[in-house]
Amino acid sequence: MDHAPFLDAAYAQARKSYDEGGLPIGSVLVASSGTVLGEGHNQRVQKGSPILHGEMDCLQNAGRRASYRDTVLYTSLSPCMMCSGTIVQFGIPHVVIGDVENFTGNVPFLESQGVVVEVIPHTPSMDLMRRFIAEKPALWNEDIAEE
Amino acid sequence: MDHAPFLDAAYAQARKSYDEGGLPIGSVLVASSGTVLGEGHNQRVQKGSPILHGEMDCLQNAGRRASYRDTVLYTSLSPCMMCSGTIVQFGIPHVVIGDVENFTGNVPFLESQGVVVEVIPHTPSMDLMRRFIAEKPALWNEDIAEE
Repeated sequence: MDHAPFLDAAYAQARKSYDEGGLPIGSVLVASSGTVLGEGHNQRVQKGSPILHGEMDCLQNAGRRASYRDTVLYTSLSPCMMCSGTIVQFGIPHVVIGDVENFTGNVPFLESQGVVVEVIPHTPSMDLMRRFIAEKPALWNEDIAEE
Repeated sequence: MDHAPFLDAAYAQARKSYDEGGLPIGSVLVASSGTVLGEGHNQRVQKGSPILHGEMDCLQNAGRRASYRDTVLYTSLSPCMMCSGTIVQFGIPHVVIGDVENFTGNVPFLESQGVVVEVIPHTPSMDLMRRFIAEKPALWNEDIAEE
């Protein structure tokens, strides 16, 4: 499967959120057939939700599933511990990440739990996240519970 | 702080969900002053959401917070890896669990991350969860992504 279109789609979600005044982090859940099962972005600002990170909003939008065994999760930014725990609990076997520079996340934890992690630097995602952190550092710190 | 009223409140949320046809797992977030900050229950059936476990629904209902340092999370059933990752990411320092028999959860992981975990067996929560698993095993397996 060519990852580029799905990293672009995760970025499009991030960009949509940024344009709405929210955190620019987006995610896409894709079946190994290439079918998009769900998309989403951080909803802290838009819905006042502390749990709807990009990955969580995407999984919520994908709805109830009996299995995630045949899926790949794309995310514009490396998953935090909430989202990493969710990936492990749901049994998502494969994660593709566009940015581990602005937030390193929990790649070793995911790998220790048997998740295949690919980091494919996605320049628009990285540039947008860097710009956002510079513009709204307090909002970013709130999102990752940094005091 | 006396834990019993808050474990009872988590059970009341679980019971409400059971009566609605949903999964009987509830949670309450409490400030160390004793103020209830949020309550919630599993919403897989009610809202069609795979991510709204009891703890997650509770945290969503508590809304945006700058810090969780001064909070205790009560839950009727031991947290899964999604909810455990969230507890760690949010910096919730203290978790009180009413049932580790019907689902063992991830107590060692939480403790390895510095979370204080207290298990206080809550008979009504345990009895209700046992009854639910016997009545709707497929729904329970879906909730924990067991195939």
